[in-house]
Amino acid sequence: MKDIQRERTIIRFQNGQAETIADTIVTEQPVTVKINGEEFVTMVCSPDYIEDMVIGYLASEGVIRRYKDIHRLRVDDSGFVHVELQRMNPLFQQLQNKRYITSCCGMSRQGFVFANDALTAKKLHDIHIQATPALCFSLMENLQKEAAVFKQTGGVHNAALGDESGILLSRMDIGRHNALDKLYGYCLKNGLSTRGKILVFSGRISSEILLKAAKIGCEIVLSKSAPTEFALQSAEELGITTVGFIRNESMNIYTVPERIMLP
Amino acid sequence: MKDIQRERTIIRFQNGQAETIADTIVTEQPVTVKINGEEFVTMVCSPDYIEDMVIGYLASEGVIRRYKDIHRLRVDDSGFVHVELQRMNPLFQQLQNKRYITSCCGMSRQGFVFANDALTAKKLHDIHIQATPALCFSLMENLQKEAAVFKQTGGVHNAALGDESGILLSRMDIGRHNALDKLYGYCLKNGLSTRGKILVFSGRISSEILLKAAKIGCEIVLSKSAPTEFALQSAEELGITTVGFIRNESMNIYTVPERIMLP
Repeated sequence: MKDIQRERTIIRFQNGQAETIADTIVTEQPVTVKINGEEFVTMVCSPDYIEDMVIGYLASEGVIRRYKDIHRLRVDDSGFVHVELQRMNPLFQQLQNKRYITSCCGMSRQGFVFANDALTAKKLHDIHIQATPALCFSLMENLQKEAAVFKQTGGVHNAALGDESGILLSRMDIGRHNALDKLYGYCLKNGLSTRGKILVFSGRISSEILLKAAKIGCEIVLSKSAPTEFALQSAEELGITTVGFIRNESMNIYTVPERIMLP
Repeated sequence: MKDIQRERTIIRFQNGQAETIADTIVTEQPVTVKINGEEFVTMVCSPDYIEDMVIGYLASEGVIRRYKDIHRLRVDDSGFVHVELQRMNPLFQQLQNKRYITSCCGMSRQGFVFANDALTAKKLHDIHIQATPALCFSLMENLQKEAAVFKQTGGVHNAALGDESGILLSRMDIGRHNALDKLYGYCLKNGLSTRGKILVFSGRISSEILLKAAKIGCEIVLSKSAPTEFALQSAEELGITTVGFIRNESMNIYTVPERIMLP
């Protein structure tokens, strides 16, 4: 696999003058997943934690039901991931005939748009975790600190799992959904429970992010940015607390406010 | 179709206090395209200019070769777009058996990752347009002015086509590629040439954006944000000028600098 960033010579124009400088640019890598020898999907991602990403992707898409459904998984240097499954989720196979764009998924008031979301998104109406505003602010601040190394290159999404004790695990990717798959795959592989965890995210809460959170089992989603209306409708249906625009000790609570302990 | 934004009651926590306020949230709408009666693709988008978006999508994916390959196109209120084709690109049909994630596309040094990109991405090594730094700054400033109405909701991507005379056409969407499809579809439908045009974009220059630009025929891509290394490799191969981090009269020129008239 390649490095996640690379040096490149560019021209910077500033104060009316052009100069040639060395700059750091994030890389992208296409990764093609083969299942039992057959090409299954190609994802474009930041080239780290590829194995975790593929495990998280297969689980959140409903291809596998649990980590041990994977017999073997091998990442090769040319961008292929070879997966041998013990068993493919039989429900998944039935639902497999729909083509779709992006892993942007969504539910409408009429129900799920994509059949495989209905398969894997969990309803999370019980309350296993609550957070004070101070915890929300500190989780967001720490996500941004951990992400500092990528600030110079710009344009990557940062995602983390946390709880009352702080950030537990953080990942980055040029693709928003990939960062979440990397978190989920790591937890599945290492048998870490995702129950009662908080998802902390640098980007917008779109319906795809909200549904990935539901698939992982996160009851609270914190974001520095805005949500979409569709994500909020999904959050209400699934029982997920969404908090956005976390900036300078201020934040917006959009759905299921019971998990935020207000003064 | 729905409105592109909606009012919602939220809790804002600020200065240590919570209050209930009305807020404006962007909407998302799943749009399912049926071709000659058969379900083809579902896209999640901001619900405006749906017809243009579908035309732009079909052309950039190589499903159609020209606008008049579409016999009829009807957008219904429930989120379906019914397309009757005169003729489907025969090359497209041959290439149609690969499943992929996101409309993130990319080329590697070894060639195109996705077969349909090879079908539609144009090589743009001739120079039909050049831009001064002042033009780059003013196009970016005007894109942001036109986008002002959406600033309060946050989280949408803005894209525009421009030339020496300024911004010609601008569109927004929650999905980066959708905003570009809306521009392209409008041009195809109205017979507007995209030759010698500049793409002005609020977001990161990923390989998907770069390839959409190549499909539209834009020789210069301007962005407020960062590019990825993969996008820059594609830009070099396709002959596209990329300029990023356009902020406060400063900018980075990454590829094919010949189209930027430096002092």
